[in-house]
Amino acid sequence: MSISPLALVSSEARLGTGVSIGPWTQIHGNVVIGDRVSIGSHCEIGHPSPLADGTPLVIGDDALIRSHSVFYEGSSFGPGLVTGHRVTVREGFRAGRSFQIGTLGDLQGHATVGDYVRTHSSVHIGQGTTMGDFVWVFPYTVFTNDPHPPSEVRLGVAVEDYAVIATMVTVLPGVRIGARSLVGAHSLVNRDVPPDMVVSGVPAKVVAEARQILLRDGSGLPAYPWTDHFHRGYPTEAVAAWAEARMAPPAVDGDPSYMHHRTTSGE
Amino acid sequence: MSISPLALVSSEARLGTGVSIGPWTQIHGNVVIGDRVSIGSHCEIGHPSPLADGTPLVIGDDALIRSHSVFYEGSSFGPGLVTGHRVTVREGFRAGRSFQIGTLGDLQGHATVGDYVRTHSSVHIGQGTTMGDFVWVFPYTVFTNDPHPPSEVRLGVAVEDYAVIATMVTVLPGVRIGARSLVGAHSLVNRDVPPDMVVSGVPAKVVAEARQILLRDGSGLPAYPWTDHFHRGYPTEAVAAWAEARMAPPAVDGDPSYMHHRTTSGE
Amino acid sequence: MSISPLALVSSEARLGTGVSIGPWTQIHGNVVIGDRVSIGSHCEIGHPSPLADGTPLVIGDDALIRSHSVFYEGSSFGPGLVTGHRVTVREGFRAGRSFQIGTLGDLQGHATVGDYVRTHSSVHIGQGTTMGDFVWVFPYTVFTNDPHPPSEVRLGVAVEDYAVIATMVTVLPGVRIGARSLVGAHSLVNRDVPPDMVVSGVPAKVVAEARQILLRDGSGLPAYPWTDHFHRGYPTEAVAAWAEARMAPPAVDGDPSYMHHRTTSGE
Repeated sequence: MSISPLALVSSEARLGTGVSIGPWTQIHGNVVIGDRVSIGSHCEIGHPSPLADGTPLVIGDDALIRSHSVFYEGSSFGPGLVTGHRVTVREGFRAGRSFQIGTLGDLQGHATVGDYVRTHSSVHIGQGTTMGDFVWVFPYTVFTNDPHPPSEVRLGVAVEDYAVIATMVTVLPGVRIGARSLVGAHSLVNRDVPPDMVVSGVPAKVVAEARQILLRDGSGLPAYPWTDHFHRGYPTEAVAAWAEARMAPPAVDGDPSYMHHRTTSGE
Repeated sequence: MSISPLALVSSEARLGTGVSIGPWTQIHGNVVIGDRVSIGSHCEIGHPSPLADGTPLVIGDDALIRSHSVFYEGSSFGPGLVTGHRVTVREGFRAGRSFQIGTLGDLQGHATVGDYVRTHSSVHIGQGTTMGDFVWVFPYTVFTNDPHPPSEVRLGVAVEDYAVIATMVTVLPGVRIGARSLVGAHSLVNRDVPPDMVVSGVPAKVVAEARQILLRDGSGLPAYPWTDHFHRGYPTEAVAAWAEARMAPPAVDGDPSYMHHRTTSGE
Repeated sequence: MSISPLALVSSEARLGTGVSIGPWTQIHGNVVIGDRVSIGSHCEIGHPSPLADGTPLVIGDDALIRSHSVFYEGSSFGPGLVTGHRVTVREGFRAGRSFQIGTLGDLQGHATVGDYVRTHSSVHIGQGTTMGDFVWVFPYTVFTNDPHPPSEVRLGVAVEDYAVIATMVTVLPGVRIGARSLVGAHSLVNRDVPPDMVVSGVPAKVVAEARQILLRDGSGLPAYPWTDHFHRGYPTEAVAAWAEARMAPPAVDGDPSYMHHRTTSGE
């Protein structure tokens, strides 16, 4: 835990306790950094921008920002942010707790994600995107926002809780990706994706129910909802709630059990 | 406007007036930088290369080069260059005025673009590419050049004036993309695209005339040619010329009015 | 040949002779660097990680690592490594001699490649990937590994000798790409690719034998196996062996001559 003597830290930046900052990293003035935050080398944190309207960059407690990353003024992140290397985050991004941004993530700002959202490498999040909680996004996926570029129209993509978007997917403007759905790799999503379904293709079409995909681990169990088997890095309370929901009888006759994996976060 | 004391600036570099250079940026010797150019932190400008044959890197007036960018010797940019973060530009690139390179742009050199070309994030421009004026290229699009890789054959992509290439498009070697055309997102373009048409798919096929796409802003007006409604950042003279061309009667009976949006730049 | 006074080099790092290190580059302690290695500016070499289990980063002789690159502890590279700018290499990567990593390459670690493998810009190599020798991978290609993300199951992609994977290809988990095959641009590979074949599409299907593709250089000769005409950067002995194999009569009646381009490297 230490601030490198080779870092440039503005005297106006507000830093918590136990903050670590690597060499050749610049912390600008309009920045609020929580406790126990670790920032790698070669970063620029709080890049000044008139588009931020003076709003500070707020990084919650216990964040890990890896090297060569650039954050602008005017965004805020809940506790537990983790980034890969070389991420770029523009103004007006809002994230809940434990957001993960993969290496080379390109966040264009003016977007909102919930809690425990995880994006892998090279994900591009256009302005106007909204995501719920516990969403997964895999490499080289792009959320677009202009239905007829170039124009001044912005139709953001909406991603609901627990949705999974695989590698190299382009999501067209204004599309809603339903809760607990799976978008297959290398797809073009040009219409809404229903909850609990798998879509795939160019353009993407419904190909299965998510629960029909089985784990390739010899168990023969369904791979979705993934909350039934994948718990790494999630808090004990969330995992316990998932297990409880799974055990509960269906609230409505005929409802598949995976319908109970809803959250209370505004879905 | 200032040169950071933490920058390394070669005494042989020729800098204009009002130049700003961020910390931990290196300016090599074989570089000509215009007036009022601003260069961010962590850049390397004028990276020496035997492939440049001693040709300097020339950056025109009023450029903005964002942090972590790398430019090699041997390329030249007209006035008004704007880049995102972490762009890479190899030897032998030639650009007209007001070229925009998005964050993570990967320009392989030995290519030529006209005036007011705008590329968004993560665009890859292979050697031999040529673009006219007022072209738009959206994220994760790649211009290839080798028809049967690996080989020594180079067939560059040609993009004509006012063409728009959407997100996650692969353009195969030697393809010509016609003026004022639109290539839909997530397409593979393996043959020439006619002017004023929309192509889409893997492989891309003509799906509509560009003027048949309507603005989703409630106006019901055509979205293309985009010059009819999108003017942000363009010079007054260009916008006036577009309006004048739009008002003019067709030069030839039956010609759709959007045929008049040609430029004089060698199309 | 020199170590910049602005670099941070750990006294515990083991450096060979004739090593060059650029400004603002950090060399951590658990690193072994060979002779005549050149490392650009703004790099982080040997990033400490508990996931490396104390294994050093080993960079063989005559490597060129371009600027803004990040290598973690716990990987090893044979002699002649060449990288573009901003590559990221995590723990547990093993490469043979003369490996090339293009600009923005994203190597997730725990993968193995043979000798003379060349990856172009923005290639993403997931954990568990294995490649033979003389493989080519072109920009924006992703090797995935989780058949139903997110999960704990890892099924790496296997690429055999002399295979060529073109631009913007997604390879699904567990797929084997056969020797001397060609995967066309913008494809989704969801099943094994036979040797010596061309596959293309979403999903990719066999469309031709590789030898049926002809060079577009006026010669009318087959473009594959590429070893018949592309020799740039390969050692004399390899090129001589290719020529000899080409001249040799088929070992088995009816076997096409290109079957002789096998290596002895464990295919």
